[in-house]
Amino acid sequence: VVEVDWSLEAAEKGGHPHYMLKEIYEQPRVLENTLGGRLHEEHANVELDLNLDPARYDRVHVIACGTAYYAGWVGKYLIESLARIPVEIDVASEYRYRDPVVDGRTLAVAISQSGETIDTLEALREAKRKGAGTLGVINAKGSSITREVDDTLYIHAGPEIGVASTKAYMAMLGAMAMLAVWLGRARGTLAEADAKEFLGELRKLPRLVEQALEQRAHVAHIAEKYHQAADYLFLGRHIQAPTAYEGALKLKEISYIHAEAYPAGEMKHGPIALIDERLPVVVLTTDSPFYEKTLSNIQEVRARGGRVIAVATEGDSEARRFAQDVIYVPRTHHLLAPVVSVVPLQLLAYETAVLLGRDVDQPRNLAKSVTVE
Amino acid sequence: VVEVDWSLEAAEKGGHPHYMLKEIYEQPRVLENTLGGRLHEEHANVELDLNLDPARYDRVHVIACGTAYYAGWVGKYLIESLARIPVEIDVASEYRYRDPVVDGRTLAVAISQSGETIDTLEALREAKRKGAGTLGVINAKGSSITREVDDTLYIHAGPEIGVASTKAYMAMLGAMAMLAVWLGRARGTLAEADAKEFLGELRKLPRLVEQALEQRAHVAHIAEKYHQAADYLFLGRHIQAPTAYEGALKLKEISYIHAEAYPAGEMKHGPIALIDERLPVVVLTTDSPFYEKTLSNIQEVRARGGRVIAVATEGDSEARRFAQDVIYVPRTHHLLAPVVSVVPLQLLAYETAVLLGRDVDQPRNLAKSVTVE
Repeated sequence: VVEVDWSLEAAEKGGHPHYMLKEIYEQPRVLENTLGGRLHEEHANVELDLNLDPARYDRVHVIACGTAYYAGWVGKYLIESLARIPVEIDVASEYRYRDPVVDGRTLAVAISQSGETIDTLEALREAKRKGAGTLGVINAKGSSITREVDDTLYIHAGPEIGVASTKAYMAMLGAMAMLAVWLGRARGTLAEADAKEFLGELRKLPRLVEQALEQRAHVAHIAEKYHQAADYLFLGRHIQAPTAYEGALKLKEISYIHAEAYPAGEMKHGPIALIDERLPVVVLTTDSPFYEKTLSNIQEVRARGGRVIAVATEGDSEARRFAQDVIYVPRTHHLLAPVVSVVPLQLLAYETAVLLGRDVDQPRNLAKSVTVE
Repeated sequence: VVEVDWSLEAAEKGGHPHYMLKEIYEQPRVLENTLGGRLHEEHANVELDLNLDPARYDRVHVIACGTAYYAGWVGKYLIESLARIPVEIDVASEYRYRDPVVDGRTLAVAISQSGETIDTLEALREAKRKGAGTLGVINAKGSSITREVDDTLYIHAGPEIGVASTKAYMAMLGAMAMLAVWLGRARGTLAEADAKEFLGELRKLPRLVEQALEQRAHVAHIAEKYHQAADYLFLGRHIQAPTAYEGALKLKEISYIHAEAYPAGEMKHGPIALIDERLPVVVLTTDSPFYEKTLSNIQEVRARGGRVIAVATEGDSEARRFAQDVIYVPRTHHLLAPVVSVVPLQLLAYETAVLLGRDVDQPRNLAKSVTVE
């Protein structure tokens, strides 16, 4: 594990006008630190330094709130794909009230930047009381959750000051991808060659996130175009559905624009009624086995006058034919597309909030760490 | 089973200005028909006339779209509470792409009014191909889904003409409650006395829905107060979370107001940033073990200037102290509260759409039965 000294100085703005922007730009380095020393392509595995027995669990419960919940949702797809374990994910405040079915073969994974989120802590206690193994995916060392779980996978994002989480989300995605490999290798569902390939793709991510950041000027131009919109819609399928939700949450949190996300295929079952020529619709349409289906969703939006901003894979010239604006992100494994795709959405929220004169680092009504139920 | 003749004449508006309103008013009779002849308090069970073996399944996958999805989400809580089987629920368009873990002990439940929803049908085929037992919860006899499932539980709602579903939702809730009893009794998780009590509560529901309809004038007054709002927020916890989502969907579908729902406890992790004095917030705060927690959510909204419309249980004078407007619904078992609580939300959507001059029965962009992916 690469030890990085997150000194007080590192928590300052470092020339950026806001902590949030500084933290967005820190993401390549953060991700390197999350993954650092833990990827072992030669052994086709990860070294997570956990005491839990990965072969013991045949059910995973992910518990989290807000942005961490969306990281957990990406994790659900990763774990189900690579380890073939059914993953249930709940917002923490709901988890304990539904009296979930838990046994000793259930692994409860609590995700929290601060490790102090009270809803997540209480939900975790409920899972533990029912006999689940417990794992924290946490940023802050020595926090409450880390003291109560069987084991902690630290995400090593360093201190995050902006209330709207960015680099911690990035680090959580990296951690969940490694967790999926760890479970998949132990259970024999992830073949050696596939593991090696996937780890190779993981290793490339910090550089790809760096490249994604280069779109900032283009994203700022799009933000300028639509910052007066009262509403925004974000759409994505499969592992890009949580990316759509995280993009909408960022915009909502710091710009106060009413942004809402939907799984792209569900749009026609309701929210399509909202679409008119004043509604910008961000569609995650990166390369994947579901690419064609998502393109057809874009056409539905266009047919009803909606303005489409597509987030597409570099080199995809098709997207440009259907969308008014295209933001390109680097190509990666389709299960890792959320990592590169969230970057322009963070920038879109940031640039929009700045244009609207919002207090980016301290949005109204919000607390960095929610310690009341 | 009580056979009702749904003649062509019954599909006309019967004196109501819109099919939707007629269908809202039909709900007590529809629910009676859904439950009719199927509740057997003396045997502490339901008679669903199904060939599937309810003891065989230890995992349930619910597959649906739109309003049917929210009925399925209520069903998840019912089945998990009464039968202690873990239930995964997915929007159908997402289900098949996530390559779900399915085996012969998985029961896949597909919910659809028309039985023709293509996303649901395709997802069902995927579950079947993987070896799941399959059950349709369907309104239209002889529809595509009914021809492909192992068994069908008909909801007997009669023809629904309004594009925004109301009575079919009501009937789906009744069907899911019976399904939960059926599974719970077969698995021995629902004791005889509890089953009898629950069935007694189910039997009372048509009359309680009738009473809920009496709030129409009061709801119309609230709609008048807020129909100029650009946005609406709907909040609920546990089994009332899906009620919040269904209420938001109805409003969105027919009024084009941007209504969004959230689990109440998740509000402070993001959407609370949207709250100001122009935002009406509907909070489901009926009697339940989570009542106090939900009241504290109301206070958070009020503290930030939001306008609160509470849906509370008759006799709850507390709610009036915290909410600007209270809509009372009759008392029932807390797992059945969604059945009575959705009624004022349907009326709120209807009255708002009428005030805004919308085409209630044929909202823009929407189709009654979605037969394209």
